[in-house]
Amino acid sequence: MAESWSFLDTPEPNFKPLVVIELAKGTNEETIKWFNKRIVDKKANGGAQLLVKPVVTENGDENIYLVGASHLRLLLGAETVGLVKECHDNSMRTFTYSSRKTFKDFADDNHNFLTTAECQYIIKHELENLRAKDEKMIPGYPQAKLYPGKSIVRRLLTSGILVQIFPLHDREELKKLSHSWYGKVKVRYQPLDEIRCYFGETIALYFGFLEYFTFALIPMAVIGIPYYVFAWEDYDKYVMFATFNLLWSTVILEVWKRICAVVTYHWGTLLMKRQFEEPRPGFHGVLGVNPITGREEPVYSSIKRQIRIYLVSLPFVCLCLYFSLYVMMIYFDLEQWALDYHEENETNFSSLMLFVPSIIYAVVIEIMNRIYRYAAEFLTSWENHRLESSYQNHLILKVLVFNFLNCFASLFYIAFVLFDMKLLRQSLATLLITSQILNQFVESLLPYWLQKRYNKRMKKRMCSLKTDMDLSLVEQVNLEKEMGTYFGTFDDYLELFLQFGYVSLFSCVYPLAAVFAVLNNVTEMYSDALKMCRVYKRPFAEPTANIGVWQLAFETMSVISVVTNCILIGMSPQVNALFPDSKMNLVLTVALVEHLLLAIKFIMAFIIPDKPREIQIKLDKLEFESLEALKQQ
Amino acid sequence: MAESWSFLDTPEPNFKPLVVIELAKGTNEETIKWFNKRIVDKKANGGAQLLVKPVVTENGDENIYLVGASHLRLLLGAETVGLVKECHDNSMRTFTYSSRKTFKDFADDNHNFLTTAECQYIIKHELENLRAKDEKMIPGYPQAKLYPGKSIVRRLLTSGILVQIFPLHDREELKKLSHSWYGKVKVRYQPLDEIRCYFGETIALYFGFLEYFTFALIPMAVIGIPYYVFAWEDYDKYVMFATFNLLWSTVILEVWKRICAVVTYHWGTLLMKRQFEEPRPGFHGVLGVNPITGREEPVYSSIKRQIRIYLVSLPFVCLCLYFSLYVMMIYFDLEQWALDYHEENETNFSSLMLFVPSIIYAVVIEIMNRIYRYAAEFLTSWENHRLESSYQNHLILKVLVFNFLNCFASLFYIAFVLFDMKLLRQSLATLLITSQILNQFVESLLPYWLQKRYNKRMKKRMCSLKTDMDLSLVEQVNLEKEMGTYFGTFDDYLELFLQFGYVSLFSCVYPLAAVFAVLNNVTEMYSDALKMCRVYKRPFAEPTANIGVWQLAFETMSVISVVTNCILIGMSPQVNALFPDSKMNLVLTVALVEHLLLAIKFIMAFIIPDKPREIQIKLDKLEFESLEALKQQ
Repeated sequence: MAESWSFLDTPEPNFKPLVVIELAKGTNEETIKWFNKRIVDKKANGGAQLLVKPVVTENGDENIYLVGASHLRLLLGAETVGLVKECHDNSMRTFTYSSRKTFKDFADDNHNFLTTAECQYIIKHELENLRAKDEKMIPGYPQAKLYPGKSIVRRLLTSGILVQIFPLHDREELKKLSHSWYGKVKVRYQPLDEIRCYFGETIALYFGFLEYFTFALIPMAVIGIPYYVFAWEDYDKYVMFATFNLLWSTVILEVWKRICAVVTYHWGTLLMKRQFEEPRPGFHGVLGVNPITGREEPVYSSIKRQIRIYLVSLPFVCLCLYFSLYVMMIYFDLEQWALDYHEENETNFSSLMLFVPSIIYAVVIEIMNRIYRYAAEFLTSWENHRLESSYQNHLILKVLVFNFLNCFASLFYIAFVLFDMKLLRQSLATLLITSQILNQFVESLLPYWLQKRYNKRMKKRMCSLKTDMDLSLVEQVNLEKEMGTYFGTFDDYLELFLQFGYVSLFSCVYPLAAVFAVLNNVTEMYSDALKMCRVYKRPFAEPTANIGVWQLAFETMSVISVVTNCILIGMSPQVNALFPDSKMNLVLTVALVEHLLLAIKFIMAFIIPDKPREIQIKLDKLEFESLEALKQQ
Repeated sequence: MAESWSFLDTPEPNFKPLVVIELAKGTNEETIKWFNKRIVDKKANGGAQLLVKPVVTENGDENIYLVGASHLRLLLGAETVGLVKECHDNSMRTFTYSSRKTFKDFADDNHNFLTTAECQYIIKHELENLRAKDEKMIPGYPQAKLYPGKSIVRRLLTSGILVQIFPLHDREELKKLSHSWYGKVKVRYQPLDEIRCYFGETIALYFGFLEYFTFALIPMAVIGIPYYVFAWEDYDKYVMFATFNLLWSTVILEVWKRICAVVTYHWGTLLMKRQFEEPRPGFHGVLGVNPITGREEPVYSSIKRQIRIYLVSLPFVCLCLYFSLYVMMIYFDLEQWALDYHEENETNFSSLMLFVPSIIYAVVIEIMNRIYRYAAEFLTSWENHRLESSYQNHLILKVLVFNFLNCFASLFYIAFVLFDMKLLRQSLATLLITSQILNQFVESLLPYWLQKRYNKRMKKRMCSLKTDMDLSLVEQVNLEKEMGTYFGTFDDYLELFLQFGYVSLFSCVYPLAAVFAVLNNVTEMYSDALKMCRVYKRPFAEPTANIGVWQLAFETMSVISVVTNCILIGMSPQVNALFPDSKMNLVLTVALVEHLLLAIKFIMAFIIPDKPREIQIKLDKLEFESLEALKQQ
């Protein structure tokens, strides 16, 4: 590779801006100069060998820089990050510059070989891998300490000198994408490959899952409709529906793994080698030696972290869960009180009062959720995880458990303590439908409207600005830097997860839930697409091979739903009528059926292979080839 | 590596026999010559470049050959099979000839760098990788077809020309090993590393597991003793014991994974790359192209195999299980009849008759087990699995399920249908103790005695034989070729698995089971060691990183034992007395506790990492280094 780097010494004429760097206003001149030099410097001198251009902001400040790279530089970067691309023989292989001719669609003048999302990912990776050499601090900021090997960008971010780095939208591509994605109202699959090219694998996989999940719900919805239309109340029909649901939910989750493997194989991320993860920006500790890399970096004792997790976070979460249950009990008391009040003196005021407890409870839950979210973020960051991934997993787990309780505790209480199936059905419907409508409004439509208003104001201001650059580009940069940041797919998956709970946990009581879920998801696809394309800053692509911890979360939910559905069926009057003499036999039968269903679930999950045969063969072939190559060496 | 192979052209003076090849008597001269030539031929000519020497048998036939290899050849072979060895810096790395100087204990004249087990494994691997070039058949045997790339040894084996290949015992080493293993009656750990050097990783891991499992049972045994001594019958003590047992069994199985990782890391097998598996000898199909290797080999449609598994094997197994249950019911009827008969006319004859049903049942079970084992082997081989490993897994699963039912069905019946705890305790004790004593006798002591007698006869005959070779070697080869073949660790693990069932399934009824299990396992270690060293042919070493499907089997058993123990406690009169009014509440409470225990089990299994931190760091370090090396290229 050494000789290829030297090609880069000749400058490239055309500069295509890919990534935006925003520094804090009034950043030291010395720092800017040093940072710029490091970005454009040759690899041999410890630089990133990228291209930089300043942009004027609306106020005339010069604290925004566009970063680009030559085509060759990007290809070499693709090799560094280990991108996997399709070869002429349809197999997927790790891209290397020396073997570039063997790859499909590769031509020295074809600048579309790498998607813009990949180019931006490469630049982000190169910037983050700019490492301090012998600098002891960031020039101009003595308090921002550096040590050999420390990522410069991370230190700039943590010391507030670097405000943000974000990838630029490509207006041409975005237009095409949004046209084929949500431009036409027409029943068709989402353009997953195009989404992936533009937003990267993580987001494309979310939309893929959303679509798959919606299709998977359709059989449940179709079977559920006659229950509502004909008001079926036979226990055997309910049992059939519930059994179908339980086995179906196992099948869809297993099949998703297979589909996921197929899709990510063709995207190349299934084969992509896991890169060594850097410490996350917020991680701190005493300077030591990383046992894996041998590099100097902060280290933090894992035992201390365990203590913080198990002795502080865990009790805190338990306390919060208890508190949330306590609030729920108060809500039920209030509800009872309002009902009593209404019965005593039946006035307009008293019937209005009937709604008050629900409204108060909804508001309180919303407030609790937000406070808890802050607390969870604070605690998880205080736990001082070294890796972003383990930080995310701990945060997701904390938020998940709390949200699960908040959403479902009242339903569990109604079902298994009050035994009120009518109220359960009613609450389920209210919760499901209102939460879905509210979510779509708060998460997409409202921000979309706000963003549109802001854009108009901005454009007006822009007209007065004078610069020698392409005005539309300056305008674009200035607009996008003020857009909200998309914080990842967490909230989107959480929404789907809770929806899955509403559909599966009480499916035998309210078969219509699947219908609403399907309807919601169809519009959700459009509103999420709108959100991604119009409301938020373009996010950096994140290569991923699966939906990670969410797979586990959905599987756990489907196990819990076996238990709840069995109990619900056991409690139904029709089933009770079958065991007139002995409630004991009823309970034992229900327990037996439940265990059988659980056993079948686990066996099915075990038997269905996680990867389709063809993909497994391709993976094996690749492994075999690399073993053979090793032998030839 | 090309230049290293040329070193091999100079002949080595001293020949150390490692592996024995026995051809069928009266094998064609032409074939022998051809086969010998292929073994000694240069790599470049498609040979294995090993050394061969003929041996005279007791009858004077010349159909036995000793295979050896020069030290250099073995080192090159070690690189081919991908052995992992310890370096000077205490890290484990894949051995390559070019980097040999960096490995601990390596010296050009140190012939102990590779253990004899490793040398034999290498020779086996090289022999099995002798592939046909342009031969259409085995010379002299037109019916034994060959095609380019077909393993010659496999074809020789399937066409009956090659009777067996086995590694030779090393009498010196064996003496040392047996002395430190079972020579001294002294409480100490087993010499696992020595066992591994002599017998390979699979067998050493079995003995490691046996030892670990025995230690893990000690706490259960210690807690169980006072229950017996003081005849404790309080329900709370039983509940405590059962709860402890259930959580303990989860912990020990999780901890075993960690210990296994530590041990196999230091043996190098944790890091060893999985070699591409050849089709097993019995596999047949139409000649096609393997999609993974691109080589010509028989292919067999996976759908056909699935059909055979699910439409023939599965129903057959279910039928056998049903039949076994049916036989059990007859046994209980007979038992009842004998009891009635004894009550009616109390004579000596009638009290003898009481034992008849049990004896008949035991004999019938033994016969059924054997027939079923044959049927399972036939069916599994008819399923035509391509890989030995998948053949083994399917066979293990079939045998496991049937043995589980045969051993435990009667106990389940006594416990959950007859509700007779006293009979349960009595049957449990009888089954556990008799099976343990019988097993040790049939499996080790009897064959040991037979072998000893045979050896004496053989030695006498040997004295009359004349040969120019070292007589003791000839005697040894002739003795060993007649010894029984050790068919792998299957039966040994099965025995432990059933024992684990006796201990854990009904632990709250019979706390003393753990005590007997510990006592049995201590003697089992000695008798198994005797069996390995004295009774069987030395087996080829088989590198392995874990106990494979048995881990899953033990974990499944521990899940089932949660269910059985909860039911048993729920049925105990003490617990029943706690819920005098409502049996319903009792059942619900038991079900709740059971679900809680299961949830705790799964969470514990999830939280406890499968590899200790230090091993994980070492693995990560290696991966990081290989990624860095790839970047440097």
